[in-house]
Amino acid sequence: MVPAARLPVPLAVRPPPPHGPRPIASLRPLLGSPCIYATLRPAAAPLVLTRRGAKEHATISADAPAKVIDGKLVAKQVREEIAVEVARMKDAIGVVPGLAVILVGSRKDSQTYVRNKKKACEAVGIQSFEANLPEDSSEEEVIKHIASFNSDPSVHGILVQLPLPRHMNDENILNAVGIEKDVDGFHPLNIGRLAMQGRDPFFVPCTPKGCMELLHRHGVEIKGKRAVVIGRSNIVGMPAALLLQKANATVSIVHSQTKNPEEITRQADIVIAAVGVANLVRGNWIKPGAAIIDVGINPVDDPESPRGYRLVGDVCYEEASKVAGAITPVPGGVGPMTIAMLLANTLESAKRIHNFK
Amino acid sequence: MVPAARLPVPLAVRPPPPHGPRPIASLRPLLGSPCIYATLRPAAAPLVLTRRGAKEHATISADAPAKVIDGKLVAKQVREEIAVEVARMKDAIGVVPGLAVILVGSRKDSQTYVRNKKKACEAVGIQSFEANLPEDSSEEEVIKHIASFNSDPSVHGILVQLPLPRHMNDENILNAVGIEKDVDGFHPLNIGRLAMQGRDPFFVPCTPKGCMELLHRHGVEIKGKRAVVIGRSNIVGMPAALLLQKANATVSIVHSQTKNPEEITRQADIVIAAVGVANLVRGNWIKPGAAIIDVGINPVDDPESPRGYRLVGDVCYEEASKVAGAITPVPGGVGPMTIAMLLANTLESAKRIHNFK
Repeated sequence: MVPAARLPVPLAVRPPPPHGPRPIASLRPLLGSPCIYATLRPAAAPLVLTRRGAKEHATISADAPAKVIDGKLVAKQVREEIAVEVARMKDAIGVVPGLAVILVGSRKDSQTYVRNKKKACEAVGIQSFEANLPEDSSEEEVIKHIASFNSDPSVHGILVQLPLPRHMNDENILNAVGIEKDVDGFHPLNIGRLAMQGRDPFFVPCTPKGCMELLHRHGVEIKGKRAVVIGRSNIVGMPAALLLQKANATVSIVHSQTKNPEEITRQADIVIAAVGVANLVRGNWIKPGAAIIDVGINPVDDPESPRGYRLVGDVCYEEASKVAGAITPVPGGVGPMTIAMLLANTLESAKRIHNFK
Repeated sequence: MVPAARLPVPLAVRPPPPHGPRPIASLRPLLGSPCIYATLRPAAAPLVLTRRGAKEHATISADAPAKVIDGKLVAKQVREEIAVEVARMKDAIGVVPGLAVILVGSRKDSQTYVRNKKKACEAVGIQSFEANLPEDSSEEEVIKHIASFNSDPSVHGILVQLPLPRHMNDENILNAVGIEKDVDGFHPLNIGRLAMQGRDPFFVPCTPKGCMELLHRHGVEIKGKRAVVIGRSNIVGMPAALLLQKANATVSIVHSQTKNPEEITRQADIVIAAVGVANLVRGNWIKPGAAIIDVGINPVDDPESPRGYRLVGDVCYEEASKVAGAITPVPGGVGPMTIAMLLANTLESAKRIHNFK
């Protein structure tokens, strides 16, 4: 038995900054495990550290390898389907879906994300709008721009690029986005509707929606299954748990205060890991045959990489892929789905606003 | 081992109608178990049906009995505390909290509830307002009354007595209640804020709030504990799960699609049962020492009672009280807490509106 572990206090799930990443773990493989360097607390030591554990690991290795859930491929399919629908809508009623992105300040990483979103829009025929405001803008100025997009009939989705400058109150600004154009789906009214039976949200937040899409497209049955979500952030973990529950899974949420997270996770047929800790979920946390969706994108030191770091998920892929039935890689798993789902939400919004089926 | 069971499809959690109750199970004790009559599916057969089970049952009986969580007593304490605060507020700023109840139609049970709420208000010094509208009122008329209470400064809480007549859309009517006076806490915006980290709801729905209050006042530690909520209704199960999660429990929700609900429930240090099925949770579902909050109030046939029925919870009290560390009785457990929490929410609302600490 592996000793009881606690999750580290969750970090934000974040992609690496394009310049000067600050890895949260040092790449120093121990005892042959590709993931051991990522263990943040000694209590979470993996099977491979003990003789008995090594034996169990060997048994696991004999199993058939997991089916890889290729998010890049699925995202491409989704984008192609969206392009077809955008064209059909334009032909039928002359409406082109529009996405507006508001960027405050000049963070390099935010600029990159905004540029990527714009490119993705163009590729499927969605019109993109942009408001670039200086770092020292006031809340009122940002809200004024949001209001103008709220009332612009060619805009069907509005997205405020986070993080906002420190002098702004995120809540005030995000709440200014009209609920019917809140394609991020972060509005509390939207989350409430997601939580309630008999209600539907206007938009499902993009990353959790991407997780569900990957499960659906890989034929993973959800109804009646045990699901564990690791992490309870407002943007991934919590809405993912609500979605799994709406799909009739029996859901448990594992977080930083959970004792023995590995025990609960081992009961799950479906795991969504979204805690932002490199390689936290080891092979011995996983029920054989389970479907694993890894939302984490964590930079770790890698002297062999030209950049000096590489990206890993919250799940130790090398170990988990020997136990799981299906698993998303990092990168190339959930990552590409997020923008695809943003496009899907924008299309959905345009269809709803124009009552186009 | 008990064979795998599934929860029956959940019924609404409801108190018995004052006239002509329709019991959902027949009172026919079998083999000495006080709860066997309530098993709706043979697959959920209890330990006592087998020789081995009977032995296990006997073992359980040898344990120390559970501490009874006396909801009637706690509700009385809460009401007394509220009365003190209402008086303090009146003395300090001359404001009396006010609760408005809207009753449409003339259902006897609804009239009883409204009368009870009115009495409870008077007892603590809260002013009560009432709008009684005929069964054939239009939605617009009901909404007009709600709007008038919304803008009435002596009203701090508004409650629409459910069920509404069939020709009305509950959602339209409930959404008309101003979020800052929605003392029921059922508004999706409120539920969303309950679900989100870093946000707080305006009001916590009364019955789940009562469950948490019982746990708190009995010194049940929640942080880091495993909790299982049985049932996922919008008014009890789902918000109760969100509250437990906010209090840092590791929460699983068991529902009609859950396989082996007893297995998951047996892992829980805290169980909140809110599924509306008489005696569903048997002694062998419960981890020794667990705290059990039973929200169910189910009428079952009882030829020995002058009324012909009696009330039981979702938990088989006779069995569970021999295994649990603490348990609420039915009646006299969660029931009395609901109105007490309604009064608490009304007071809280008045304090917030008048910025009184």
